[in-house]
Amino acid sequence: MEGRVAQWVAESVPRLTFDQVLDRLNHLTRPYHKNYLAMYSSWLGGIVTDPALMMIPMDDHLVHRGDGIFEAFKCVDSRVYGLSRHLDRLERSAKALSLDVPVNRSRLEQIILETIRVAGVRDCLIRLFVSRGPGGFSTNPYECPASQLYVMVTVLHETHQDKYNLGVHVKTSFIPMKRDYFANIKSCNYLPNVLMTKEAQDEGVDFTISLDERGFLGEGATENVGCITDTLEFVVPRFDRILRGITVSRMLELAGVLVEMGILKGVRESDVSPEEVRRAKEMMMFGTTFDVLPVVSFDGHPIGDGRPGPFFRKLLGLLREDMRSGSEMVTPLDE
Amino acid sequence: MEGRVAQWVAESVPRLTFDQVLDRLNHLTRPYHKNYLAMYSSWLGGIVTDPALMMIPMDDHLVHRGDGIFEAFKCVDSRVYGLSRHLDRLERSAKALSLDVPVNRSRLEQIILETIRVAGVRDCLIRLFVSRGPGGFSTNPYECPASQLYVMVTVLHETHQDKYNLGVHVKTSFIPMKRDYFANIKSCNYLPNVLMTKEAQDEGVDFTISLDERGFLGEGATENVGCITDTLEFVVPRFDRILRGITVSRMLELAGVLVEMGILKGVRESDVSPEEVRRAKEMMMFGTTFDVLPVVSFDGHPIGDGRPGPFFRKLLGLLREDMRSGSEMVTPLDE
Repeated sequence: MEGRVAQWVAESVPRLTFDQVLDRLNHLTRPYHKNYLAMYSSWLGGIVTDPALMMIPMDDHLVHRGDGIFEAFKCVDSRVYGLSRHLDRLERSAKALSLDVPVNRSRLEQIILETIRVAGVRDCLIRLFVSRGPGGFSTNPYECPASQLYVMVTVLHETHQDKYNLGVHVKTSFIPMKRDYFANIKSCNYLPNVLMTKEAQDEGVDFTISLDERGFLGEGATENVGCITDTLEFVVPRFDRILRGITVSRMLELAGVLVEMGILKGVRESDVSPEEVRRAKEMMMFGTTFDVLPVVSFDGHPIGDGRPGPFFRKLLGLLREDMRSGSEMVTPLDE
Repeated sequence: MEGRVAQWVAESVPRLTFDQVLDRLNHLTRPYHKNYLAMYSSWLGGIVTDPALMMIPMDDHLVHRGDGIFEAFKCVDSRVYGLSRHLDRLERSAKALSLDVPVNRSRLEQIILETIRVAGVRDCLIRLFVSRGPGGFSTNPYECPASQLYVMVTVLHETHQDKYNLGVHVKTSFIPMKRDYFANIKSCNYLPNVLMTKEAQDEGVDFTISLDERGFLGEGATENVGCITDTLEFVVPRFDRILRGITVSRMLELAGVLVEMGILKGVRESDVSPEEVRRAKEMMMFGTTFDVLPVVSFDGHPIGDGRPGPFFRKLLGLLREDMRSGSEMVTPLDE
């Protein structure tokens, strides 16, 4: 009897053979797998489309230390938007962590575009990861012989229409802001951001926004924030303490035309206090997936008349026009 | 000719079939793979011993957000040291992140011990990861249906003898300390720790030690620090700003016997200034892999007479005795 119990205990944590693992991978499908279109892995040396194979070595320091960087951008109507700026920022993040991007810029672009082509859709979201690479389980980056590149292409869900029509609700976050040193590195140490997203869900709002030690606005979990002041200026928080978002940066450039037209008095980066926001005509969030969203309440206070305003529509229109145009922001998929 | 170039470009980022990936995995061996003995993966549902299969889904939020926690402990002469305390701390980290450990405590212990048994050696290092799990690529933890458990067993390199004999050199770190909120969560957001390890390597010392904003000593990248003061007290930095190390905590308990014997005047947690350390009789590092190491210089200043001292040997002896004993710290592998 004892023997049988001992056998049962041993069996209850099965040891898997190579073939058993393959069998498991072969039969592994999850509802969310349908969103995964293609993945390039420098570790595997090519592009896979079976979600069960979209794996990464456990010893890649990205996994156990968050020792890697990323970028997220999208392809709309077969045009990749902001590719060049995202890759510029990737290079800045890599430099800050003394991390080698394992391929040169033109090869990197080739891999990205080819992975999107294999994904086979006109609209998708692309996430690019550069990791310290496999090599061991310590914190020592020098134990990794070679950094790795992973490019993940997923379905782009266009489910923002309700939010464009009705606006979003935001609150102040209680999660401490990242230290200056790390704020401008788009690393995979994103736990503060994860907790901000969780906080928003738990609080029943769309986003929470961090405040710095002096009480000025920071950023959302993965979004930037800005407002149209009561003096008709387009103001966003200074980028010295937060990540310089590609969408909001482009928005600041495009808004110049509204200044020229006399619709806006100016565009500036500065300290933004919660009081200034509460007095604002409009408040908005900026991000890769949704472009611009109108904020209709902040910590329960209505912004403007509590409905999406005309500046939101103008700014969203400018960004969408920029995507359709032949501007330097656009890289067509089929060249 | 243009056609051939286009074809070459397309081929140069190969699309891999399921079988090609298997073939690649089947032939994948790296020098560091010899250190990987066994891995349990709740995703695969068992224990694998082929290092090429020690993979994790790319969409596990541990990978792309660092949304997971870990513990590292060792098995010496078929006895797991400090298992219960490491699992207590794991539970505290999990709670702080609202992360579910996917199995109960007794099942967790069973999985760990069985993975070590499959590893088949008497001495090894165990790393345990609890991740938010696969489910998507956003920051939202609620998109993950189930957290996952990964247990990695690797070779325990006993290469510390030189350091026990000659001592180690440490310097002050320039990497900013983690925020209080995150300092006591043993998460996989370990980039500050990675950069401290890199800093030590770059500076040609064994470890660097963080300072808090007031200039008091914090911790090493993955080690605690302590000293024997000129008044014969065993002092370690307060644990409200740093991770409470299992080794140093046990050391503080075990050192009680030296106080009873009148060899030490006392044992305390307090603010420790660099000046106090420079005046100290001895300085030491504490960690899971090496237990205790004697520090012989700090920022270039010799500590004591610049050689490993008698308290280091006494403290190391107490820890080693604790590992050999039948204390509550020890879980024998073969029960």
